[in-house]
Amino acid sequence: MVGERAQTYEADELVEIAANIDDLNPQIYDHVVERLFETGARDVTLTPTIMKKGRPAVTISVLAEPSAREQIAAVLFAETSTIGLRYHPVARLKLAREIKEVDTRWGRVRVKVSRAGDDTVTLSPEYDDCKRLAREHHVALRLVLEQAQAAARQQLTCDD
Amino acid sequence: MVGERAQTYEADELVEIAANIDDLNPQIYDHVVERLFETGARDVTLTPTIMKKGRPAVTISVLAEPSAREQIAAVLFAETSTIGLRYHPVARLKLAREIKEVDTRWGRVRVKVSRAGDDTVTLSPEYDDCKRLAREHHVALRLVLEQAQAAARQQLTCDD
Amino acid sequence: MVGERAQTYEADELVEIAANIDDLNPQIYDHVVERLFETGARDVTLTPTIMKKGRPAVTISVLAEPSAREQIAAVLFAETSTIGLRYHPVARLKLAREIKEVDTRWGRVRVKVSRAGDDTVTLSPEYDDCKRLAREHHVALRLVLEQAQAAARQQLTCDD
Amino acid sequence: MVGERAQTYEADELVEIAANIDDLNPQIYDHVVERLFETGARDVTLTPTIMKKGRPAVTISVLAEPSAREQIAAVLFAETSTIGLRYHPVARLKLAREIKEVDTRWGRVRVKVSRAGDDTVTLSPEYDDCKRLAREHHVALRLVLEQAQAAARQQLTCDD
Amino acid sequence: MVGERAQTYEADELVEIAANIDDLNPQIYDHVVERLFETGARDVTLTPTIMKKGRPAVTISVLAEPSAREQIAAVLFAETSTIGLRYHPVARLKLAREIKEVDTRWGRVRVKVSRAGDDTVTLSPEYDDCKRLAREHHVALRLVLEQAQAAARQQLTCDD
Amino acid sequence: MVGERAQTYEADELVEIAANIDDLNPQIYDHVVERLFETGARDVTLTPTIMKKGRPAVTISVLAEPSAREQIAAVLFAETSTIGLRYHPVARLKLAREIKEVDTRWGRVRVKVSRAGDDTVTLSPEYDDCKRLAREHHVALRLVLEQAQAAARQQLTCDD
Repeated sequence: MVGERAQTYEADELVEIAANIDDLNPQIYDHVVERLFETGARDVTLTPTIMKKGRPAVTISVLAEPSAREQIAAVLFAETSTIGLRYHPVARLKLAREIKEVDTRWGRVRVKVSRAGDDTVTLSPEYDDCKRLAREHHVALRLVLEQAQAAARQQLTCDD
Repeated sequence: MVGERAQTYEADELVEIAANIDDLNPQIYDHVVERLFETGARDVTLTPTIMKKGRPAVTISVLAEPSAREQIAAVLFAETSTIGLRYHPVARLKLAREIKEVDTRWGRVRVKVSRAGDDTVTLSPEYDDCKRLAREHHVALRLVLEQAQAAARQQLTCDD
Repeated sequence: MVGERAQTYEADELVEIAANIDDLNPQIYDHVVERLFETGARDVTLTPTIMKKGRPAVTISVLAEPSAREQIAAVLFAETSTIGLRYHPVARLKLAREIKEVDTRWGRVRVKVSRAGDDTVTLSPEYDDCKRLAREHHVALRLVLEQAQAAARQQLTCDD
Repeated sequence: MVGERAQTYEADELVEIAANIDDLNPQIYDHVVERLFETGARDVTLTPTIMKKGRPAVTISVLAEPSAREQIAAVLFAETSTIGLRYHPVARLKLAREIKEVDTRWGRVRVKVSRAGDDTVTLSPEYDDCKRLAREHHVALRLVLEQAQAAARQQLTCDD
Repeated sequence: MVGERAQTYEADELVEIAANIDDLNPQIYDHVVERLFETGARDVTLTPTIMKKGRPAVTISVLAEPSAREQIAAVLFAETSTIGLRYHPVARLKLAREIKEVDTRWGRVRVKVSRAGDDTVTLSPEYDDCKRLAREHHVALRLVLEQAQAAARQQLTCDD
Repeated sequence: MVGERAQTYEADELVEIAANIDDLNPQIYDHVVERLFETGARDVTLTPTIMKKGRPAVTISVLAEPSAREQIAAVLFAETSTIGLRYHPVARLKLAREIKEVDTRWGRVRVKVSRAGDDTVTLSPEYDDCKRLAREHHVALRLVLEQAQAAARQQLTCDD
């Protein structure tokens, strides 16, 4: 079965770029992260760490296409205080995904549908759609997410 | 001396598989981690990180034999909400280890004995043995661990 | 001297409201935090913690006026999965603050100026002003912050 | 409306007991937490912190009935390396809660139902029930939790 | 038994002073912590948190005598960027403690001995003594700590 | 432009060595980190993680020259409780850097000046210089850092 499952994964190669930063005003990360996504980052994480002299530091880690590596490095050097960074290639497995739309009591929501083999389906309602509806209808966001998830699950069952 | 020491390490190759997860109910990690160990994970860590929109996310990282990579990926895709993961090979150094048994005031405990060169010996009392004795005898667990450690150190000195 | 300094602090009383949350989709915190600020929170922190069964949980903590306590509680109960929260009064000391404007090479920035005694002055350039200028002029945000800080320090020296 | 809502909260007083621990083998926390819950703790969190000399320490924090304070303190002093702890009273607000049972495709699950005012209902499927079903039926735990949640929501709608 | 145990605790009252800081160069904490201890802090923790706009912030928390509160506040306002802080009283329980000296293979070490009731004794070898010996004798620090602990335990048994 | 910028980076290869540690007294990390830097580590981070049984563990990660790998491994095996570690090569990009001296109101400070392309210059005042002046002159450390930064920026502008 594993062999069959594996066929449903998409594979490519990314680069993981990281810097340990212990001397940057934390306000700035908001902007750094935005700039990194604009420059082609696929994912950015800020991990709290402890560095030299017990400093409450941050390791910033970026996943990106190998072709974006130079620009990502340029953003990190320009926008943060780091004077060094490291990178290494990583293999990437992704589930095939498609966008569907479902109706909730409060309006339409896009849902990302990802399949890994016969019976594993991950349903990810679009956060921004749900948040907008929650704000417009003064309803708890978790209810909108829950209902979008339920609607997508039901539609999925009917389709199969 | 370093050369001599190096000879006492065992070396092999593992794969490090990781996913950044920002949309999973934290309750589920307990089960995910169990399933990963059952599927051949050698080690699993959950690292708190900050992702997009300031989300308090988790990077789950798994060390495993390269041959277990497909199954580990299948568990991550099935049991978590992630729709992508990454991996890269890592070299592994291990101390040779053997299990000894020692007697504490409260009963017998297994101790993992690992050597790195002439004078470096790491003694790791089996946690579950110590915990069982602590519960049976209503004694503080740290005392049992301490005594098992001391007994193993003494036995080691006598052996040498 | 301490007595003199103390006179420069403003004092009031706040309430600190907290909940330990181990079963909420982390996506939702972005919205929870926004709603809490709209409801009168003075400060909100998300602290990564470990809860029962090793769950990577979050303690959400809110500082608010005592009069806002009921509404803050209502938001936490509505928007998160928590079914319990706790609170206790805290005394608050604040520096007197005023807003000044300074000119940088890229434009005008507001700076919060806070004094604690004779020689301690904290200068906090408005983050959003600096970020806007950084974006408009394609310059690193940390340079704008640095220059706003320097301009405010210089103006302060001239004023004194 | 807030007044009406407030009437649905249950209120009592707890004590929050905490210790900063920077010299304890992390293995032991598993046992400490179990012993604390057995001794009447309502909630226990382990928060990673940085202490003197940059140590990666832990603040252990316990919520308990005031009457359990002495025993909680005794467990902390016996099972951890701490030689001091602190506590302060906190007020507690809780949602009224009841247990319902719902049927999923894989079996029956208990669900904690909590109400905060007219329209806010929190549904918390019992984790251990869901985990047992997931294991017995070789299905992803998150699907069982999702279906239990959906079944409880539907039943709730029918009841109202 | 709990009553008897309780008699062995020393009790006093401290104040817990805290500030959430999201705009300070992390390098500076090393100095802030030193200055706080010099000013009478009994304990200082830096806890990684997430604040507004997803900033990787720090909550600095200080335990101190109530009489030191003004000076602690003055240090926080002078040395950090915070313009507000909060505090509340906490009750403190401490174990009675005394310093003993023990001999290890590498030299003499002071050990803090704390008792909580009949059978609970916490032994804390002085870190700086052990570290000095480890450096002088080129031996692993954990071995010195382990041996100091074992020597203190043995002496304790002989004394009783 | 990116091509031009890239020419200003220095490139080399390092090795990243890591161990997940869940059974070590946190006091010891201070010494471990010192020993690692003495043995050639370029950077060391301690990252709080959650391991098996919910343990509040630490991933220690070391960046080093490939030629220092054996000695770094020997220190980790000698000074920590780990019995296994992993490593993988990483590429490194560094900004060219030089040390300049600037005068502040309180004395001379070295500043590391790093350039990435035409207009991006990172100025890093030497922490230890600034801390010494702050202590000698009883002035807030952040003021010394700020003034050293400002003096370096001004000197830079004059040089260009």
